[in-house]
Amino acid sequence: MDDVEYLGLVASSLATLAFLPQVVKTWRSGSARDFSLATLLMLEAGTGLWMIYGVLRDAPAIWLGNGVTFALAGYILSVKVKGLPSRLGAPTEGSEPSAP
Amino acid sequence: MDDVEYLGLVASSLATLAFLPQVVKTWRSGSARDFSLATLLMLEAGTGLWMIYGVLRDAPAIWLGNGVTFALAGYILSVKVKGLPSRLGAPTEGSEPSAP
Repeated sequence: MDDVEYLGLVASSLATLAFLPQVVKTWRSGSARDFSLATLLMLEAGTGLWMIYGVLRDAPAIWLGNGVTFALAGYILSVKVKGLPSRLGAPTEGSEPSAP
Repeated sequence: MDDVEYLGLVASSLATLAFLPQVVKTWRSGSARDFSLATLLMLEAGTGLWMIYGVLRDAPAIWLGNGVTFALAGYILSVKVKGLPSRLGAPTEGSEPSAP
């Protein structure tokens, strides 16, 4: 692994760790309303393909980082999807007490 | 440019175009509250370093995509930063009418 690949590892680490504070924030707030659904879906598709690219190129900086990002962004996507029904008028858990 | 680099271009295009609907959404809502500031700053640093990596590797799929992402995520960051004062108790534009 040469020097350029190490630079890639730093870039990959930054981009990968970047999603950790986002997951913590989204975990606490339970809200991903400001996120675009299309954006999250395309990010998942994009990081998925980058993983394949990285494996074919034998470039750990690429497939490792994108694999973690794929997982973390997947969590944001799951929160976003869970929040969608309330936008369609369906009741949100705990938003209103109701008789059984 | 071989087949693997074309795969990288598709991945890069997806990841790059992914931020377009996000910019449109953020432009319309004017809100980036659900975004983590640390995440946005680290994404800018990460995509900046990926640009250098891509140039050194002569891999357009890497530097081109990250350059656009750098610009688009920079817009989200600017909206996030503009929204920060209101969290510190400063009045937001138009939030309350006041005499001159």
